[in-house]
Amino acid sequence: MNKDYYVVIMAGGIGTRFWPMSTVACPKQFIDVMGVGKTLLQQTFARFANFCPPENILVVTGMAYRDLVLAQLPEIKPENVLCEPHRKNTAPCIAYANYKIHAVNPNATVVVAPADHVVLKEDVFSRVIEEAAEKASQNDWLITLGITPSYPNTGYGYIQFDSSKEIDPACPSLRKVKLFTEKPEFEMARTFVESGEFLWNAGLFIWSLKSAMKAFKEHLPEVDELFASGVGKYNTPQEAEYIQKVYLVCKGISVDYGVMEKARNVYVMAADFGWSDVGTWGSLYELRPKNADENTLVGKNIFTYDTHGCIVNAPKDKVVVLQGLEDCIVVETAHSLLVCKRDQEQMLRRIVSDVSEKAGEKYV
Amino acid sequence: MNKDYYVVIMAGGIGTRFWPMSTVACPKQFIDVMGVGKTLLQQTFARFANFCPPENILVVTGMAYRDLVLAQLPEIKPENVLCEPHRKNTAPCIAYANYKIHAVNPNATVVVAPADHVVLKEDVFSRVIEEAAEKASQNDWLITLGITPSYPNTGYGYIQFDSSKEIDPACPSLRKVKLFTEKPEFEMARTFVESGEFLWNAGLFIWSLKSAMKAFKEHLPEVDELFASGVGKYNTPQEAEYIQKVYLVCKGISVDYGVMEKARNVYVMAADFGWSDVGTWGSLYELRPKNADENTLVGKNIFTYDTHGCIVNAPKDKVVVLQGLEDCIVVETAHSLLVCKRDQEQMLRRIVSDVSEKAGEKYV
Repeated sequence: MNKDYYVVIMAGGIGTRFWPMSTVACPKQFIDVMGVGKTLLQQTFARFANFCPPENILVVTGMAYRDLVLAQLPEIKPENVLCEPHRKNTAPCIAYANYKIHAVNPNATVVVAPADHVVLKEDVFSRVIEEAAEKASQNDWLITLGITPSYPNTGYGYIQFDSSKEIDPACPSLRKVKLFTEKPEFEMARTFVESGEFLWNAGLFIWSLKSAMKAFKEHLPEVDELFASGVGKYNTPQEAEYIQKVYLVCKGISVDYGVMEKARNVYVMAADFGWSDVGTWGSLYELRPKNADENTLVGKNIFTYDTHGCIVNAPKDKVVVLQGLEDCIVVETAHSLLVCKRDQEQMLRRIVSDVSEKAGEKYV
Repeated sequence: MNKDYYVVIMAGGIGTRFWPMSTVACPKQFIDVMGVGKTLLQQTFARFANFCPPENILVVTGMAYRDLVLAQLPEIKPENVLCEPHRKNTAPCIAYANYKIHAVNPNATVVVAPADHVVLKEDVFSRVIEEAAEKASQNDWLITLGITPSYPNTGYGYIQFDSSKEIDPACPSLRKVKLFTEKPEFEMARTFVESGEFLWNAGLFIWSLKSAMKAFKEHLPEVDELFASGVGKYNTPQEAEYIQKVYLVCKGISVDYGVMEKARNVYVMAADFGWSDVGTWGSLYELRPKNADENTLVGKNIFTYDTHGCIVNAPKDKVVVLQGLEDCIVVETAHSLLVCKRDQEQMLRRIVSDVSEKAGEKYV
């Protein structure tokens, strides 16, 4: 285990696409969406157990989620939970973590990972991360991981790589990035996949701290300067108050848009480790194991009769009986129940808005 | 208001046909199944508010439901709640109440009514009861109420009356009973209804205490003797212990089978007061008002989208969102959720058995 290796887990999302399983009070990363006994955050943390010492893993989250993080990760030191006073997208989150790490280890090599993604092939993931970290520690490269696309997914951003030349004969999957793209229309996505030059953007970054800080300074100076002015305060009692002020004025911007799309030294490592950002109930249904009736049930007391193709989540102590349901999402929580056709899940946005307006914000 | 008028409300049922809304711990009569803000027991009690003084209303129930009765009927005196140590069907229940009333008023006229039926036309009901009580107080008649059938219901018992002659020119709806029948097959039910000689058995009895006690003594002497031997103990501290012993040995038998089918002085008064025994979800769906989507919703925060023909019950504080459901029963309680096609409700028996066996008796 390399003591210069660090991991920054970004756990500040507040998505309600999995309502009512996820809510603003308890977003997806803090939920055992896969029904495996671990939340996505816990799975993400565990994924790096052999990569670096636990004290080198930082979690960046919102102030409101600090206690959730500490409760779900008893191994983490409280000072390793970075609390953002406001949500400002990924660039400020990473800049903050960079300066924190810089204060203790300027020679760090850092992996930045979202807390709410699924990785089915943990061993492949570990090997890829090790390889990427090794490359990043030796080169001034901003490395991102690209997932070999298995179909034209329109919910992901794509990364086009330069297929004309290899960067490293020992690592043929590492290529120079030509282009980052937003979520494409279906026809475009199909062209991307067929071309063989595009990968799914998994939002995972590996770089040396030096390279990352240099890139931020160059491409996002207005963000970098805010955090740079705090040098001397990181890991001291003055940090919290300083960060409070920084986040009041700092602009919200993604690291993709603010840094990766502008930098010239961006590389992508192609990999296939059973990755998904589990952005929709549909993707979760696909990911989870299903029984003979094509149902995937999370809960202790779920009874199904003439019920097929359903994804069901219920608390352990609740009896859920479903009869005659086809292809539905059924989610039972302490405060809400949702029954919705799987192919109508795009209605969730309107549903959550209706519930918030008519029943109250506390439900969403 | 006649001070010799008494009412015995039978509230000892433990049906689970409305599971999970009703459970053994809280059966149907203690639930606001109609969503009107009153439980069936409360509605039944209120129905007799102008018939007799509240201290003349007795509720017979199981030991386990005493607190529920007292909580739901703050007007009732605790000594008016008769607790049966065991369930022995309707005859012992009525015999017990008879002896209790006899100890305080041998000249009583008594109405016996189930706690868990629905009456939509309260004013008609009141007039019919008044008329029946007046007749019963003046004659040695065992009067039962018969509902003019609107269709061949196979879930009710039927009463055939003698259509050849009127008993009382001033009360043409009062006829002598020829026959009590069990729940018929559909073809038989149709014949019954078409004949014009059959009425639904509503399980409501009106008689003078003298006539009732005489009929029990004659047709159910083994039951009557058990309760008769307790004379002197009713309404004293010895009552509870005595009743405990009686119920240990008393046989279980219905008043219909044990008394009404045998007695020669049985009369039926035909009436139509929007009666239902609400024995099934289907009958409850028919009874309750429905919205433009043919849904009937009880709950404060129920949201429906592309959902039709559903009957939904949810606690006030729970958000329930239903999308794409047709003709379903959806019931949400603190401990359980049921989603079941309305035309498959006969599966409830099996479902409740499965839940009891696999999740535990506390759920049913």
